[in-house]
Amino acid sequence: MAKLYFRYGAMNSGKSTALIQVAHNYRERGQHVLVVKPTVDTKSPQVVSRLMVSREVDLVLDEEAALRDAVLAAGAPDCLLVDEAQFLTGAQVEDLFRLAVQDGIPVIAYGLRNDFRTRGFPGSLRLMELAHSIEELKTICRCGRKATLNARTVGGAFTREGSQVAIDGEVGYESMCGTCYLLKIGTLG
Amino acid sequence: MAKLYFRYGAMNSGKSTALIQVAHNYRERGQHVLVVKPTVDTKSPQVVSRLMVSREVDLVLDEEAALRDAVLAAGAPDCLLVDEAQFLTGAQVEDLFRLAVQDGIPVIAYGLRNDFRTRGFPGSLRLMELAHSIEELKTICRCGRKATLNARTVGGAFTREGSQVAIDGEVGYESMCGTCYLLKIGTLG
Amino acid sequence: MAKLYFRYGAMNSGKSTALIQVAHNYRERGQHVLVVKPTVDTKSPQVVSRLMVSREVDLVLDEEAALRDAVLAAGAPDCLLVDEAQFLTGAQVEDLFRLAVQDGIPVIAYGLRNDFRTRGFPGSLRLMELAHSIEELKTICRCGRKATLNARTVGGAFTREGSQVAIDGEVGYESMCGTCYLLKIGTLG
Amino acid sequence: MAKLYFRYGAMNSGKSTALIQVAHNYRERGQHVLVVKPTVDTKSPQVVSRLMVSREVDLVLDEEAALRDAVLAAGAPDCLLVDEAQFLTGAQVEDLFRLAVQDGIPVIAYGLRNDFRTRGFPGSLRLMELAHSIEELKTICRCGRKATLNARTVGGAFTREGSQVAIDGEVGYESMCGTCYLLKIGTLG
Repeated sequence: MAKLYFRYGAMNSGKSTALIQVAHNYRERGQHVLVVKPTVDTKSPQVVSRLMVSREVDLVLDEEAALRDAVLAAGAPDCLLVDEAQFLTGAQVEDLFRLAVQDGIPVIAYGLRNDFRTRGFPGSLRLMELAHSIEELKTICRCGRKATLNARTVGGAFTREGSQVAIDGEVGYESMCGTCYLLKIGTLG
Repeated sequence: MAKLYFRYGAMNSGKSTALIQVAHNYRERGQHVLVVKPTVDTKSPQVVSRLMVSREVDLVLDEEAALRDAVLAAGAPDCLLVDEAQFLTGAQVEDLFRLAVQDGIPVIAYGLRNDFRTRGFPGSLRLMELAHSIEELKTICRCGRKATLNARTVGGAFTREGSQVAIDGEVGYESMCGTCYLLKIGTLG
Repeated sequence: MAKLYFRYGAMNSGKSTALIQVAHNYRERGQHVLVVKPTVDTKSPQVVSRLMVSREVDLVLDEEAALRDAVLAAGAPDCLLVDEAQFLTGAQVEDLFRLAVQDGIPVIAYGLRNDFRTRGFPGSLRLMELAHSIEELKTICRCGRKATLNARTVGGAFTREGSQVAIDGEVGYESMCGTCYLLKIGTLG
Repeated sequence: MAKLYFRYGAMNSGKSTALIQVAHNYRERGQHVLVVKPTVDTKSPQVVSRLMVSREVDLVLDEEAALRDAVLAAGAPDCLLVDEAQFLTGAQVEDLFRLAVQDGIPVIAYGLRNDFRTRGFPGSLRLMELAHSIEELKTICRCGRKATLNARTVGGAFTREGSQVAIDGEVGYESMCGTCYLLKIGTLG
């Protein structure tokens, strides 16, 4: 039985680099990898790492997309890699589970586990419920501790306002430990 | 900084045994451990392991309980252990987080991550969002694979009907792998 | 392919309890577990946990024992559990590896990783080289930190003298963190 | 207390990429990272990843080098990263341990755990004995399973002959699972 892996990490923990590395490892062995990504992240049709390496996305999926059908139609790969998996719908995560369990395709989904108000995204919550293996990619807070939360800034000032997804010029994010998050944001609730 | 640990596992993975062992380890070192448990599980005011060892619960918490205040009022322990943590409210999990981050008390919460319809419980979902470390306690399916899901039986027959929490004589649970779960229950959704 | 797991931990981390729990989980599913143990530990032909639960050992192995042959002759089990695995020889660990890889039997070996002078045992070093999965069972130091080393006492006084294995009335062990170990013992080398 | 981490993986598992990513994460936070490497690997004074990213090595250490003194003399960093850590001497690994425990510097050492005959290297064995945390970087075998061993080829043919370290034009390595290794090499011993 193949497995569904959820590799989560705070902002800037190296999720895209890790995905590109795994794609590279499979390709080196002559194996076929498919890389998919939800459309919510409209930055680009590529996986782009802060180390300045990038990788084409094979399938871009909107919220209505039948993920399993699309993957099987693309030719069942030896491994399926998902970038920005937090933006998947719950039904799409169930498709990832079936691709692993019923179709025998290892699936590795990379994503955030919580938003700027410490709440899960639809995709990450369903992954936390269903993944066979939950693994953390670590990064550090400005204070040197491990960062587990993501704070939002608008124009450089910390805020708890706005919609769950906001990726425009004014909005920034900083991965933080619990102590610094409570200091800057004041509340988890 | 102390940490909040979520150690999850399917039914019968040995969560209570693990909790009792950790309590024993701390006590052997002359350290003070507090064991808490939500009231939803009315089986007993004890942590009871299938290995036939048990441990008193120090605080039983209903849904309204102010967890952090209660723990601090009981004398801040060297370590806080939580049994059946899936039944905590989201606000109580936030209290666990604050006890670790702000009060410096290591917190180890043991619980299920998903119910018989593969959905998270309120406490486990919030723990998945906030815990500093997420660790799995493994057990096996009837087929020998790792079990990650929990199926419900009523009178011995598998079912997807009923409320999230049901602990009476007729109702049973079986921890299962994805393949066996889909075979017996037919759907994840 | 089945796997060879090495679950290591310092003294009194609950290794025997964990082994007994796993044996219990398999038996509950109607599966056959074999428990083996090297003779070096002559304390008893049982696995005995500090929680006062115990489990019969099915095979006691001296250093000359052909482990793989003995296990297969005993009827290939659904799972092989090894207590005090640090005392196995390197060749016996290779047999564990072959039982997993060639005979399809999952093997879970529990043991110490280092002795009172911070050096590996023959069995644990070979397990660190060969195991498919290396997992830690945690316990705490007297100071509350995680213990990763084991200090020896003779008549209550810390010492670095004596042979690697010494289990008599005068000799005791204390699991410690690096800071406390260096404070009490003075050196790693 | 800072910790000593050993992140091990088979050949081509992405160890150098992971190191470069961590260095990048620290630098982004305005923190000072020191990257060290033993001289045994004479390929270059850089960490070079197969993704075509690279990073300067700050200190190249021969077997005689007093690692701890050299690191402290270079200005105690916020984090110490070690490439090719399997080539360190045991005494140098003890220095890493002291830098973490006594000097409060987190140390992350990346390396192989076993050579082409499945035996540990001096540095990796001592790291397995002393590291506070042992974490695996995974890669795959040609057959799609996880690779945990490293086979040597000379002129394209598998071999068990030669010294532990050999990095010249004729010699190649392939990371493999246990099944494929036994098939190609025939023995672990």
